[in-house]
Amino acid sequence: MGNTFGDLFRITTFGESHGGGVGVVIDGCPPRLEISAEEIQAELDRRRPGQSKITTPRKESDRCEILSGVFEGKTLGTPISILVRNENTRPQDYSEMVTAYRPSHADATYDAKYGLRNYQGGGRSSARETIGRVAAGAIAKKILHQVAGTEILGYVKRIQDLEGSVDPSTVTLEQVESNIVRCPDPVAAEQMVDRIEAIRDQGDSIGGVVECVARGVKVGLGSPVFDKLEADLAKAVMSLPASKGFEIGSGFAGTLLTGSEHNDEFYTDEAGTLRTRTNRSGGTQGGISNGENIIIRVAFKPTATIRKAQNTVTNTGEATVLEARGRHDPCVLPRAVPMVEAMVALVLCDHLLRHHGQCELF
Amino acid sequence: MGNTFGDLFRITTFGESHGGGVGVVIDGCPPRLEISAEEIQAELDRRRPGQSKITTPRKESDRCEILSGVFEGKTLGTPISILVRNENTRPQDYSEMVTAYRPSHADATYDAKYGLRNYQGGGRSSARETIGRVAAGAIAKKILHQVAGTEILGYVKRIQDLEGSVDPSTVTLEQVESNIVRCPDPVAAEQMVDRIEAIRDQGDSIGGVVECVARGVKVGLGSPVFDKLEADLAKAVMSLPASKGFEIGSGFAGTLLTGSEHNDEFYTDEAGTLRTRTNRSGGTQGGISNGENIIIRVAFKPTATIRKAQNTVTNTGEATVLEARGRHDPCVLPRAVPMVEAMVALVLCDHLLRHHGQCELF
Amino acid sequence: MGNTFGDLFRITTFGESHGGGVGVVIDGCPPRLEISAEEIQAELDRRRPGQSKITTPRKESDRCEILSGVFEGKTLGTPISILVRNENTRPQDYSEMVTAYRPSHADATYDAKYGLRNYQGGGRSSARETIGRVAAGAIAKKILHQVAGTEILGYVKRIQDLEGSVDPSTVTLEQVESNIVRCPDPVAAEQMVDRIEAIRDQGDSIGGVVECVARGVKVGLGSPVFDKLEADLAKAVMSLPASKGFEIGSGFAGTLLTGSEHNDEFYTDEAGTLRTRTNRSGGTQGGISNGENIIIRVAFKPTATIRKAQNTVTNTGEATVLEARGRHDPCVLPRAVPMVEAMVALVLCDHLLRHHGQCELF
Amino acid sequence: MGNTFGDLFRITTFGESHGGGVGVVIDGCPPRLEISAEEIQAELDRRRPGQSKITTPRKESDRCEILSGVFEGKTLGTPISILVRNENTRPQDYSEMVTAYRPSHADATYDAKYGLRNYQGGGRSSARETIGRVAAGAIAKKILHQVAGTEILGYVKRIQDLEGSVDPSTVTLEQVESNIVRCPDPVAAEQMVDRIEAIRDQGDSIGGVVECVARGVKVGLGSPVFDKLEADLAKAVMSLPASKGFEIGSGFAGTLLTGSEHNDEFYTDEAGTLRTRTNRSGGTQGGISNGENIIIRVAFKPTATIRKAQNTVTNTGEATVLEARGRHDPCVLPRAVPMVEAMVALVLCDHLLRHHGQCELF
Repeated sequence: MGNTFGDLFRITTFGESHGGGVGVVIDGCPPRLEISAEEIQAELDRRRPGQSKITTPRKESDRCEILSGVFEGKTLGTPISILVRNENTRPQDYSEMVTAYRPSHADATYDAKYGLRNYQGGGRSSARETIGRVAAGAIAKKILHQVAGTEILGYVKRIQDLEGSVDPSTVTLEQVESNIVRCPDPVAAEQMVDRIEAIRDQGDSIGGVVECVARGVKVGLGSPVFDKLEADLAKAVMSLPASKGFEIGSGFAGTLLTGSEHNDEFYTDEAGTLRTRTNRSGGTQGGISNGENIIIRVAFKPTATIRKAQNTVTNTGEATVLEARGRHDPCVLPRAVPMVEAMVALVLCDHLLRHHGQCELF
Repeated sequence: MGNTFGDLFRITTFGESHGGGVGVVIDGCPPRLEISAEEIQAELDRRRPGQSKITTPRKESDRCEILSGVFEGKTLGTPISILVRNENTRPQDYSEMVTAYRPSHADATYDAKYGLRNYQGGGRSSARETIGRVAAGAIAKKILHQVAGTEILGYVKRIQDLEGSVDPSTVTLEQVESNIVRCPDPVAAEQMVDRIEAIRDQGDSIGGVVECVARGVKVGLGSPVFDKLEADLAKAVMSLPASKGFEIGSGFAGTLLTGSEHNDEFYTDEAGTLRTRTNRSGGTQGGISNGENIIIRVAFKPTATIRKAQNTVTNTGEATVLEARGRHDPCVLPRAVPMVEAMVALVLCDHLLRHHGQCELF
Repeated sequence: MGNTFGDLFRITTFGESHGGGVGVVIDGCPPRLEISAEEIQAELDRRRPGQSKITTPRKESDRCEILSGVFEGKTLGTPISILVRNENTRPQDYSEMVTAYRPSHADATYDAKYGLRNYQGGGRSSARETIGRVAAGAIAKKILHQVAGTEILGYVKRIQDLEGSVDPSTVTLEQVESNIVRCPDPVAAEQMVDRIEAIRDQGDSIGGVVECVARGVKVGLGSPVFDKLEADLAKAVMSLPASKGFEIGSGFAGTLLTGSEHNDEFYTDEAGTLRTRTNRSGGTQGGISNGENIIIRVAFKPTATIRKAQNTVTNTGEATVLEARGRHDPCVLPRAVPMVEAMVALVLCDHLLRHHGQCELF
Repeated sequence: MGNTFGDLFRITTFGESHGGGVGVVIDGCPPRLEISAEEIQAELDRRRPGQSKITTPRKESDRCEILSGVFEGKTLGTPISILVRNENTRPQDYSEMVTAYRPSHADATYDAKYGLRNYQGGGRSSARETIGRVAAGAIAKKILHQVAGTEILGYVKRIQDLEGSVDPSTVTLEQVESNIVRCPDPVAAEQMVDRIEAIRDQGDSIGGVVECVARGVKVGLGSPVFDKLEADLAKAVMSLPASKGFEIGSGFAGTLLTGSEHNDEFYTDEAGTLRTRTNRSGGTQGGISNGENIIIRVAFKPTATIRKAQNTVTNTGEATVLEARGRHDPCVLPRAVPMVEAMVALVLCDHLLRHHGQCELF
């Protein structure tokens, strides 16, 4: 239970940080979509450890293999299974965690729930699990783009108190990828990189906020009442490691306004399309997409595993001090950007298929 | 699709604001639980319109009838169906909304998705739909309390910029229910009531933040990776009408801290129980409950339907001005409190049954 | 758990034989379908007890009320809830079953699983539960007919050893409804009625086989590999009370042939359509409909509750003799016909929506 | 859609006959179960092609690799992914099927549904897909055996008209495996082998009936009303390639009896356990296991792919004659035995976990 996401475009991820590998099975992918391992690899490379000086120095190439579901470059409508082998694992880096519980990490709760865990790393709670999500997200993105021209773009909006200035209506992938922190505001980006380096050198970590926009979304996606688009988006991103909060549109700040200030006035544009003059709703009304940009924000806490000494206890309840070795990200946000994009794509693609069925899209 | 929530403790709600009635079918309720219509009614009365001067003056008694699943005061293990008849509907109050789309409401997106809607009110997007959730939540709460002594308590934390001071570890239901705004800080509560009344008199509306605590939660609830407790909680509350944001534990504010500041140190208490000294995690680690209090916050936007004149368009695309009649809440938060509690209870009860099975709890 | 059927056209039934009532919530019904309570009632009347001299003499009018999901005669795309009140219950007829377990009935296993049961009748295992299925099936039938001209027609093929001669390609509803046993072969029908009356007078019961044909089924319905059309059909009808076997196409008899005898040759008809010369496949190949008639058969055992004395035990394990009073069907088959049709319709409608989506059918 | 089976013990299979490989992801497996690749391999070897002179001469070793979910010989409670690489594929054997549709095979319906297919073999409709099921079934069997001592044993009951005499209460695995046709009646087995060889030499194929018994099943498994044990078993086995019929207990033959002949009398045995004197019910009453042996039968049609010349059409609608090359089983039944066992085990294990939860079994 718990390793499957989506109803009609349904993914099941598998794999621990240590062991044979990690991957995903995608069930419900429409047939006749052209897809290649290279397209999937491109997204995985944005998620990959060791991609820059501000991410973990672990070197994992994360090469993906498509095991099934694609024939002569096209999807068959059958399950697409994608595998990434584990490599460069150093179980010895985790030797002190065999018994000591890392504070604010999943070690203790996994032990409590399952009575055992893979103590050679984060196991299933490792960010490595998100490889399967990003691989599936690459396919979902392509479907959405081909069917409706939808673009999904995430970026780092804030690191601690350093906030970038970004216009979600116009920001480009090129701008996001122009720096290693993935903040399209170059001035803020530079400050963020400096901050992350400084924190890393202290053996500590920091967090921040990823913002993600979906442009060109079809009208009518989302199912009242429990499967509102914002509800499914919230679940999707709150299932990512280290996420602590979710907003859509005006979010928490919107609670400071009155209704007359907050409401999005309708108008009919020159093309005869129903539009709203503002977008505090964030692209959905009543849980259903209205064609405006979907804009969400996700809070990521500072990475739990740090080098600094921390008081904790062992799995037999004795007090101890932990200084985590291993090679950990001082800040997950740059690598979280493709994860958030993937989750948004998965939700939208699932609702696209609910609306249109699986088989007649291509 | 979309009207069912939960896997093992699974609810399906039905009904529009106008028509025969609203209700819920609960599938998976453990057998042999003692339950009465009165216990369910008590929760419905906290959600009921017309309960105070700061809620809508609509008078609906919202009397519930248990149609099935209970025999001689005990649950049978079969589906529990609960029905609340609609009454006191005034379709004429909605006559101008037959054609005019209310800004930031679901009218336009429902029309776009379904090609028709019940224009006599909010239809399925009405807060009336939540009656079924609150009824089911009453049963979920009782199960959690009987099995583990779990208490779930929501309250208004903030209205616009007016924030109450509340200790989630000690706040009581009595304190919450001691005033009509359901803020356990009596000073803030008085200011909130005044603010709501002033806004209502202007024909406008306001929003705020509901906080909810679950105390005495069993360790080990929640399923990595997609069904993390925080992911399911986020989906649960983001499916409530008017919600725009979700936080657990430190939430967005936690992104300002470093890892060493944010991490919750483990210790073993006198009873030999694994505890954390702080609770920035908000009661879950790795998506699994750790036995500390679960603390979440939900942002509710100002009510979309207001009396003040607003520019909008009709369903044929022509510009118009709407001054909504009808009897609407100037602020949904006091009535949202039992809704948030219900959704938290539904999530915890579902995970309790995943962990323990359905049949051997009582 | 267990009271929901279908994924995209999803029904949840509720209710016991004794209590407030029985019914169904249908989630996923396409919007803009014209439907009335009368159309649903017509199917319920075919299922109703007391409709002829060979069914139980219980008089229940089984009047249905649509509580939600329909507005001005059209479906809204929201959950359709249908309620039938219980009436004319005589709990005293069941007084001896409070403690004595009826052989081959659900009394003992319900007690074992749930630790209690509604001993005033069959409770949830009563055939009364199928009211919700038949009501939902009426809507599914109408969708299939409007979208693809599909006709679903069941009939009694065999009672004990009395077998009717029926051509599934041409049989009509009028022929089926021309006699009270619902066997379109009038000669066999008369023998069947005589047999049922004779058995009833002995305080005993008999079973037989219902055959059901779906004509005009769209090509391409059914999802390999677990949700093959024949797999979903098998589950659907094996969930009906008293069913003991399922066949599609050649069924068990087909195992006597060789492959060259059994295979259905393909050809292209005058209209250029791919057809098969024979239909031993029964309308599906590889789990997917091929446009030929879908033909299934369901074995129903003799009714378990009989007047004749039977040895059994009480719920405390003591030997006793049971002579069931109550008003029971000596043969369930005439009333099972609309149930089988409903289940076939539900399966086909679910797969139709998987293929085409919910919202753009009407 | 359609590639996932089960709710709490949930499997997703993937892979085509040609391509990278086939496999399964098992979600919901209880933690702390000891399991090895060897135990899984033992079941796969019973399903493997080329195991005897009466199966296809294709040589595939079908070696399985556990990619995740097992650590130091024990399950982690996380998804178990198992991969079997494809090998020894000869796409040229299928060259004539690139365009010609095999009668009674899935070629035509896959093309109709998906608009393309892997024409190098059966693709997803190949019996090779069942590798994932048998691997998962091996784990389900072990869970059932460890928790309740349950034994699941299938065997060939009938080949065409040749029926073996078998007592399901006492038959042993040793007896089943004592001959290559897997019929525990040695006299019938010899006739069956001769018949299969004769048919194979004619370039034709035959079918028959597999019977399967589950002994030592816990009382109380199965969920009324749609997820009755017999309904889930029917779906499970009717999703196997080539199955055309399903029976439980008395099945179709039971329809010839009267109620007083058919009912299973209850009695209390010496240990104080509630038992039935006969077992026409086949181990379930009201959809719930009663502790007696579960006995089902599955009809398998003669293999569709045969060497004999058959009339058919091409994918452009032109008449053609097909003489299938390739290396096909003249009779699927000997290899179907472990498949049926696996499906029965998956159903029972799923219901076991519904009843008892995932985490506290070992």
